[in-house]
Amino acid sequence: MVAPLTATAINCSLSAGGRESSTDAMLAVLAEHFTDQNVTVGDPIRIARHKVRWGVTSDEGDGDEWPAIRERILAADILIFGTPIWLGQASSIAKLVMERMDAFLSETDDAGRMPSYSKVAVAAIVGNEDGAHNVTSQILQALNDVGWTIPAVAACYWVGEAMGSVDFKDLKKRPGKVTETAKMVAANAAHLARLLRASPYPG
Amino acid sequence: MVAPLTATAINCSLSAGGRESSTDAMLAVLAEHFTDQNVTVGDPIRIARHKVRWGVTSDEGDGDEWPAIRERILAADILIFGTPIWLGQASSIAKLVMERMDAFLSETDDAGRMPSYSKVAVAAIVGNEDGAHNVTSQILQALNDVGWTIPAVAACYWVGEAMGSVDFKDLKKRPGKVTETAKMVAANAAHLARLLRASPYPG
Amino acid sequence: MVAPLTATAINCSLSAGGRESSTDAMLAVLAEHFTDQNVTVGDPIRIARHKVRWGVTSDEGDGDEWPAIRERILAADILIFGTPIWLGQASSIAKLVMERMDAFLSETDDAGRMPSYSKVAVAAIVGNEDGAHNVTSQILQALNDVGWTIPAVAACYWVGEAMGSVDFKDLKKRPGKVTETAKMVAANAAHLARLLRASPYPG
Amino acid sequence: MVAPLTATAINCSLSAGGRESSTDAMLAVLAEHFTDQNVTVGDPIRIARHKVRWGVTSDEGDGDEWPAIRERILAADILIFGTPIWLGQASSIAKLVMERMDAFLSETDDAGRMPSYSKVAVAAIVGNEDGAHNVTSQILQALNDVGWTIPAVAACYWVGEAMGSVDFKDLKKRPGKVTETAKMVAANAAHLARLLRASPYPG
Repeated sequence: MVAPLTATAINCSLSAGGRESSTDAMLAVLAEHFTDQNVTVGDPIRIARHKVRWGVTSDEGDGDEWPAIRERILAADILIFGTPIWLGQASSIAKLVMERMDAFLSETDDAGRMPSYSKVAVAAIVGNEDGAHNVTSQILQALNDVGWTIPAVAACYWVGEAMGSVDFKDLKKRPGKVTETAKMVAANAAHLARLLRASPYPG
Repeated sequence: MVAPLTATAINCSLSAGGRESSTDAMLAVLAEHFTDQNVTVGDPIRIARHKVRWGVTSDEGDGDEWPAIRERILAADILIFGTPIWLGQASSIAKLVMERMDAFLSETDDAGRMPSYSKVAVAAIVGNEDGAHNVTSQILQALNDVGWTIPAVAACYWVGEAMGSVDFKDLKKRPGKVTETAKMVAANAAHLARLLRASPYPG
Repeated sequence: MVAPLTATAINCSLSAGGRESSTDAMLAVLAEHFTDQNVTVGDPIRIARHKVRWGVTSDEGDGDEWPAIRERILAADILIFGTPIWLGQASSIAKLVMERMDAFLSETDDAGRMPSYSKVAVAAIVGNEDGAHNVTSQILQALNDVGWTIPAVAACYWVGEAMGSVDFKDLKKRPGKVTETAKMVAANAAHLARLLRASPYPG
Repeated sequence: MVAPLTATAINCSLSAGGRESSTDAMLAVLAEHFTDQNVTVGDPIRIARHKVRWGVTSDEGDGDEWPAIRERILAADILIFGTPIWLGQASSIAKLVMERMDAFLSETDDAGRMPSYSKVAVAAIVGNEDGAHNVTSQILQALNDVGWTIPAVAACYWVGEAMGSVDFKDLKKRPGKVTETAKMVAANAAHLARLLRASPYPG
């Protein structure tokens, strides 16, 4: 019996508010498809609700809540990195999370492997309009630098028409293209995570 | 009597074809608004119709048509840089044009000024879906590196909903947001170009 | 008598610490050259020392210190935007500041002008290694979106050799290329800010 | 007996010239380490020596040499994507190659898999100064969009100090950090390619 794959989802919305964010809505779409792949997905961690301090180490002290979040991220096989788009770019909270992972570079094991090695990351991105490709490029580059593996077609996103103002969470109907992409992202990520769990990078 | 401002528009579509491209359609929108600002805009130069060689000098020889295009660009006060979006990025032809301007870095006058100094650049960007912010970032950074000045709100763009396939040139109606942005881009660029023509950078 | 030009410098270092940061060191280089241009530059605002809340409005309440910083930024003719590089990207605090300026988009005057109109922005960027061009692209795109004007050659940066670990503040000697670039950035920004103060964008 | 893994390397230098390019020098470093991993690496394909036409289909006709290059790329398990940096960005030829792969999006098999599925891509990047992170972000995003899988730590790069002018091929001694990174890139890519060859994505 092999334990089922697990995924940790993070939501880098700027708002700590109780109501559903569009990023949550996109994470929910992905969660459905990951469930279809027999991956257990926990409730998204809304970073803005936690006191995550600025820095590039794994514990910045003074009540820093990153260590607990870091542990949940590294306990799973898959990271689902959710962020809204602001000014065509990932949120500052997304950048904060990536900076905290900068510490991985010096947390290698005896074989030179970062704690993120043999784990898979994908992105969930939403905005009113444009910016998803830019966000994808910044997230994939940073996460890959700090050791994450990127499965084929790793980004699931939605944005409206140029300079639009509709929110993903308010769409009447889930766009077919989003469903199709979410399915690919989940299937590819699950497959790759399964391979890497059975045969981790030797370092 | 002051000679009217002039603008040179380039179209970095991958196609040399005779039919109107969406990039041409966006350039036409900007041309209307530049005309309202008393700026004379020539017909767009479709780069793909010319033999522009790869390189980073101003004349790569062997029938290179860049020298003539370079002259038309530098004869105007304003550059309207038009490009389609492919894979969320500027076209390879847009990159080719920027590389040819790399030569400006070593073509400074006695006061250390590149040939692009005191000239203004704006961007016209179109795609079926997403990528305009990424294209803007790459174009503004590169053009600014090689001496162009960027007026407030320098990019006019259109993209459809995520993973869409409608072309800008086939839209039934010009989106109000595009008209609004084109007007700002043209008004700001014309104002700044006028100031810089009267008072160029001293170097 | 015309009042001298003024510049506000911000330091988006992740650290609030008392000791000089490399970003401060680069801001000091620019301040020297701006002073040569008769621009009065205040001490850098170290954003990490202030309680700047996440969000996209100009006052997020609950002790938010952004409104006071925003006022100092908008009181000056020139913004010197200083950021370190982390993972090849601008700091999360740099992104936070840009997000707060998203509010400018809806704070237009009767002529449709954002509060940043007719003001000039430049960047001061430092890192141990690589990333300055990426940071430049993200900063120029975002600041230009929210109304700032970008003078020719607007970024002054230093990074060491690939994967290096030397800090700019610890260099024995200021690199000649940095001095040369700082001089250009300051001269061009001062010239353009002077023109725009005398003749603001009409909107 | 399992056939050994193979890698195809491409060199997106702007020059077709006979002499070694810095991109070739970096590709040679990676080839050494891939050989250590029992991966057979062919001589780099210098794209500028071939008539590769602009476009987004797999055969643009009229003597287009892309179809043959495409075949060699897809015949291998691993793609080593080599590009120089110009203006802090990937070369126009690198962009041209990525655009040609746009066609993969519509060349899916019965299980919805692009021809690049279950294949691994890494990057080899060189420049005189700065830009490697930006190039990495643009290459990883584009290649991943069109189906490539990205192993942990997928970019091997070298750049000199800010605004430097030394070429990688002229370095007296190979930097230790480059050797270290090349080893990681090759080991991770070979491991992942081996897993994916044995167990391709089910689609």
